[in-house]
Amino acid sequence: MESKLQKYINEIAPLDTSGAERIQKRLDNLTKPHGSLGMLETLAMQVCLIAGSDNPSFRKRKVFIMAGDSGVVAEGVSAYPQEVTPQMVYNFLNNGAGINVLSKANGFDIEILDIGIAFDIETDDPRFINRKVAYGTENFTKGPSMTREQAAASVLAGVNAVREDYEKNGLEMAATGDMGIGNTTPSSAIVSAITGAAPEHVTGYGTGISDTQLQNKIDVIKRGISANNPDPKDGLDVLSKVGSYDIGGIAGVIIGAASVGIPVIVDGFISQAGALVAATMCPDVLGYVIPSHQSVEKGSQAIWSFLGLRPYLNLGMRLGEGTGAVLMAPLIESSVKILNEMSSFESAGVSEKS
Amino acid sequence: MESKLQKYINEIAPLDTSGAERIQKRLDNLTKPHGSLGMLETLAMQVCLIAGSDNPSFRKRKVFIMAGDSGVVAEGVSAYPQEVTPQMVYNFLNNGAGINVLSKANGFDIEILDIGIAFDIETDDPRFINRKVAYGTENFTKGPSMTREQAAASVLAGVNAVREDYEKNGLEMAATGDMGIGNTTPSSAIVSAITGAAPEHVTGYGTGISDTQLQNKIDVIKRGISANNPDPKDGLDVLSKVGSYDIGGIAGVIIGAASVGIPVIVDGFISQAGALVAATMCPDVLGYVIPSHQSVEKGSQAIWSFLGLRPYLNLGMRLGEGTGAVLMAPLIESSVKILNEMSSFESAGVSEKS
Repeated sequence: MESKLQKYINEIAPLDTSGAERIQKRLDNLTKPHGSLGMLETLAMQVCLIAGSDNPSFRKRKVFIMAGDSGVVAEGVSAYPQEVTPQMVYNFLNNGAGINVLSKANGFDIEILDIGIAFDIETDDPRFINRKVAYGTENFTKGPSMTREQAAASVLAGVNAVREDYEKNGLEMAATGDMGIGNTTPSSAIVSAITGAAPEHVTGYGTGISDTQLQNKIDVIKRGISANNPDPKDGLDVLSKVGSYDIGGIAGVIIGAASVGIPVIVDGFISQAGALVAATMCPDVLGYVIPSHQSVEKGSQAIWSFLGLRPYLNLGMRLGEGTGAVLMAPLIESSVKILNEMSSFESAGVSEKS
Repeated sequence: MESKLQKYINEIAPLDTSGAERIQKRLDNLTKPHGSLGMLETLAMQVCLIAGSDNPSFRKRKVFIMAGDSGVVAEGVSAYPQEVTPQMVYNFLNNGAGINVLSKANGFDIEILDIGIAFDIETDDPRFINRKVAYGTENFTKGPSMTREQAAASVLAGVNAVREDYEKNGLEMAATGDMGIGNTTPSSAIVSAITGAAPEHVTGYGTGISDTQLQNKIDVIKRGISANNPDPKDGLDVLSKVGSYDIGGIAGVIIGAASVGIPVIVDGFISQAGALVAATMCPDVLGYVIPSHQSVEKGSQAIWSFLGLRPYLNLGMRLGEGTGAVLMAPLIESSVKILNEMSSFESAGVSEKS
């Protein structure tokens, strides 16, 4: 399993930046002060480099929602009961969730992968794919969340989801999403384990726990890390010891997108934890990652900084599911149009800076 | 002129918030933790209250680009020569500027008003409207930028532009834009005069001047304020003494939109200065103002704070023209869809927070 995954990782090429100077010249020649469109210019640059085209379209878009449960909910870390995970999956299939509305509004298809839901999902909806590694993770305060083999399987499930869609349907842009009651707990544990930040600095209120519950959550994460002693340089080790299947799947979506050379928009906190795991396994994935938004969940900013990425949006969101990621599509479209539809100083007869 | 303007200001009703509790209940009943869509929920609330509808569409959108020149450029405050103002107006008419590309991408028509360009614009393009009050303002280091009568005329031009489009074409959403070489200087002067902030705290690099030029620009603003002694409680006085026609026009667009009860998206620094003038004349306009983005121009954040508004975007932009304002449209659309298309906990059979 791990060797199969390594094969795909080996396929990842560093982002080809050979066109950067040419694109920068084009941007600087447009009728505006240099750099005055700020991050819109950065965004145009990145997506054009990834696509190897100055006018990419990214019409085939899909958000991959990785769903899984966390055994650590037994420690009382979440405000919602575990049955909400399958309930929300049915809600996705009935088009009633936030991600349904926002992915439709912003031109994304959705695919829901059961990577480790603690319940069976009964549906024949083709947007649902059963890749269940186990019925939820183990409680990581008492031992590892999963075996290393299971960790590799969860990542591979994400990789395969993207690669299959790329091969069959010509996927052009991926976005990451998550569903799993309690999954901010393994996320914070991963952030703490990989970045070295103290759990109290990267653990937040999730879906809305009390201050007392937050103290317990921090304590649970500390116990989990000290019981399992994850190796911060080994993404699969961290994932297996204090992670969860949905986060593994997200890491896989990112690795999968990078392996076929398409952009992958990374959502908020849970997805960022997946990006940390992916980048620990293969730093070159970051060239293909478009950071979407800063979540209000404590620790979101720490991850973006650690990865050297600056998110485009900061809208006080904390829903997950990929809702922040899909909001990036109109900005990406606008950024590419800037490069292609604006006049140059010369063609417009506009004087340059004196 | 001023009494005509006052008539429209008197028509402005405070935003009707009687539906707020009902809308909040609807938002809280959707299948997501309360408030987890953050500012997207605030945005939905505001635009629904303005429209007096839970499902407004805002299909008729226009960005009003107010163009005018500033006599104070004689003091060497800008990196670009004054002829760039008309050159850029022709660029707008030829669809080659940033605002052309971004307004098209985000569903806005454009209208360019000559409120005080120092040159004659020759065109029969119906998107261009000549409402020239004068050939540029006077140099405010030597006396007021304009008379009080001219200030009122510039604001009225903006009011009329919006009201005419509303009456003839059913305008549903306005956005503000600006064009005028040197116009960050009157903007900073207005911010300093109205908020009391020291010029050095609200004066930036504009289109890209050097540090030496910045020191001169700050000195010019200080001299202008001390020579003219504007009354911070009197928006028209501040506008006439240290403002410019384009900023007056922007204040007018905001007042016009509020007077007919439609939302007005306010762009970055120059437009924010216009919003300061408008809010000083009539604080009730703020209920209709959608703050778009934080500009990198120093002082942008100070204005939003002073007005008690939090911008949605922070993309390091500093182009003006309305480019940051029009980027808000997809977020507004997404926010309204959230309210109307998501399932409730009850209808989706999802358990609520324990």
